[in-house]
Amino acid sequence: MPQINGARLLADLRRLAKFGAYKSGVHRPTFSPQDIEARRWLAGRFTDAGLEASIDGIGNVFGRSRATGPKLLIGSHTESQNHAGWLDGALGVIYGLEVARAFREDPSTARAAIDVASWADEEGHFGSFLGSRSFIGDVTDEEIDRACDHNDGTPLRKALATAGLAESKRETIAPSDYIGYLEAHIEQGDTLDEAGLRLGVVTGIVGIRQYGIVFVGEANHAGTTRMVQRKDAGVALIKLAAAIAERFPRIAGPRSVWTAGAIHTEPGQPSIVPGRAEMMFQVRDLEAAQSQRFEDLLLTLVAEANAGPCAVTMETLWTVSPVLMSEAFQDALSRAAQKLAPGGFLSMPSGAGHDAQILARKLPAGMLFVPSIKGVSHHWNEDTSEADIVLGCQALADAGEEITRSA
Amino acid sequence: MPQINGARLLADLRRLAKFGAYKSGVHRPTFSPQDIEARRWLAGRFTDAGLEASIDGIGNVFGRSRATGPKLLIGSHTESQNHAGWLDGALGVIYGLEVARAFREDPSTARAAIDVASWADEEGHFGSFLGSRSFIGDVTDEEIDRACDHNDGTPLRKALATAGLAESKRETIAPSDYIGYLEAHIEQGDTLDEAGLRLGVVTGIVGIRQYGIVFVGEANHAGTTRMVQRKDAGVALIKLAAAIAERFPRIAGPRSVWTAGAIHTEPGQPSIVPGRAEMMFQVRDLEAAQSQRFEDLLLTLVAEANAGPCAVTMETLWTVSPVLMSEAFQDALSRAAQKLAPGGFLSMPSGAGHDAQILARKLPAGMLFVPSIKGVSHHWNEDTSEADIVLGCQALADAGEEITRSA
Repeated sequence: MPQINGARLLADLRRLAKFGAYKSGVHRPTFSPQDIEARRWLAGRFTDAGLEASIDGIGNVFGRSRATGPKLLIGSHTESQNHAGWLDGALGVIYGLEVARAFREDPSTARAAIDVASWADEEGHFGSFLGSRSFIGDVTDEEIDRACDHNDGTPLRKALATAGLAESKRETIAPSDYIGYLEAHIEQGDTLDEAGLRLGVVTGIVGIRQYGIVFVGEANHAGTTRMVQRKDAGVALIKLAAAIAERFPRIAGPRSVWTAGAIHTEPGQPSIVPGRAEMMFQVRDLEAAQSQRFEDLLLTLVAEANAGPCAVTMETLWTVSPVLMSEAFQDALSRAAQKLAPGGFLSMPSGAGHDAQILARKLPAGMLFVPSIKGVSHHWNEDTSEADIVLGCQALADAGEEITRSA
Repeated sequence: MPQINGARLLADLRRLAKFGAYKSGVHRPTFSPQDIEARRWLAGRFTDAGLEASIDGIGNVFGRSRATGPKLLIGSHTESQNHAGWLDGALGVIYGLEVARAFREDPSTARAAIDVASWADEEGHFGSFLGSRSFIGDVTDEEIDRACDHNDGTPLRKALATAGLAESKRETIAPSDYIGYLEAHIEQGDTLDEAGLRLGVVTGIVGIRQYGIVFVGEANHAGTTRMVQRKDAGVALIKLAAAIAERFPRIAGPRSVWTAGAIHTEPGQPSIVPGRAEMMFQVRDLEAAQSQRFEDLLLTLVAEANAGPCAVTMETLWTVSPVLMSEAFQDALSRAAQKLAPGGFLSMPSGAGHDAQILARKLPAGMLFVPSIKGVSHHWNEDTSEADIVLGCQALADAGEEITRSA
């Protein structure tokens, strides 16, 4: 059985966190100087580990095994959200590096091939899962021509040229080369930490349905317009939102979430009855049927709201289908977790998106979570205990061993 | 009895509406070139009517009677909101001018003195009731030094200099000079129009209590944060606002109004649970006791909200006390209304603020409303039928006759 080297793993994670270090976290946006430096450092570490290193035309960093046995792909991302945590993405990439090293060092796994990837722009500074989507053939040159940095407007083409990647080809997957894909990640929620558990085996990545709901009434003087005459768009929104808060829990699944993330009224003056009000509303669930139940109820509530004095319209703005992880990979990860932390792990969906949902379109995929202390995510305070970091990597190695052995 | 001249009244109103004409309304912000021009024209009309005309150091336009009998002050304002109606304010000023002319032309009232005033900046482009407050001695030079145009930042001192008023004294009231103050205005609501009534006798001007209510929770990932763990400031706001919508009507008076005019959540992103939410909430009522009942209930609801996962704070941002109109003046106006439109008038509070609430601090005051077609206000579509305009002026003249005769 391959044994990971905890000290080496932690040293590489700490070294990577120096690129764009910010307080106790990192600020390493896609194709920032510190991000490019980190990608080049990572390619060097791949080479040191005996892997064939390359950076492709979208910024994906690959470390390819020279072994000839069954081939497993492990990856995540090394860029960060702005002023965010040191482990989000980085953990999964360095896990891949360390698992590749441990496989190579153990005679029983030295013939199995671990390829490691750091996917570009999972965090969406320029697009949405650009690196992993490019790898599965889902990104056109036109999409790259159009993409710009959401923060400062830099065209993606210019950023790629600055990174020295303008002439590089984009690599694409040959699915038959791989048994499957594994990704480890911090949980980004508090389920594991709150319950004192050490590992999470991901059952799937939730689907997202996002709606824009607009209420149109009549802006009017807040002193002279009698209550009975009002067409108050803000009150109409409040009533719908209160009905959602009351009725959604009654039909929710155990891990369903729903969020009215953005609410505002217009003209937004204290002495004017709101003539317009808007709400961005989102549901996430692993089961499409559950998301549909929510949508049906939402449509009913919107129809009820339309019987009031304001006109209400609802538009679907964004839909992401839920993605299930491979049952076999879940089993392998659960067995590894049970061995290393008996009773200390949980099967759970991922509420956040990950590159695994992209790779899962082409390969069996599995994901492993380690606890986020207090559930902190996308903040420089994000952290995981060293013991949990080391345990997670060994669990990934053990599951990888079973998966490659069974292939 | 003095008889007003309807054709002359309408001609003056139409002429005034040419200054800053915008669609079927006017755009005549305080101290805009068109507003200054309108003030100079008005002073000329005062002179034509035999009144002693002047413009004081804050822009108030006065037309003072040379008669020696009991003195009644009639006024309103000639500047407008941006791109607003032709009658808001203008009606009351030209009514004053016409009543002064009618009194002078009738031997029975020629000895009574009607003073007419157009108060500067009732609409609050630079401050709050600057002209009428200056006249009752409530505006300091320091307030004028500090005041700026809310739209373009022009200092009030500069605007006064441009208007040629930098060297003019500000006039202040000698209360013993006057029997009282009358003001006519369009209703700005739809109570009269909806009921087919032609005149409103104002019982008082409502008090306003305005609150800022802030909800602080915890911004978090909308996918990974379980419902049970959330401190959603938006949901906390929605629940309070829904409780207000449900419980306020049960304790409301017949003319109470309440408004959540501005609601917004932060950071206002669809995939982030709101960590902060704010609501501007306002109640208006003629009875201070009713406003207090609302405030007591609001405090109860805020305390209940504080038992939830978010911290809720409530701050009183603005308080205007209700102002009652003189009973004697209400009686005089009601008798005049009953004579001219038997059964066609209503005693009612004013939900909007008026210069009368300022003058009422020094003099007995009365107000008369004419209908606003469909209740439109602060919009260039605002209008009143010519028949109602003429009727209202005669009612004001008749009430003024009774008031000066009884003095």
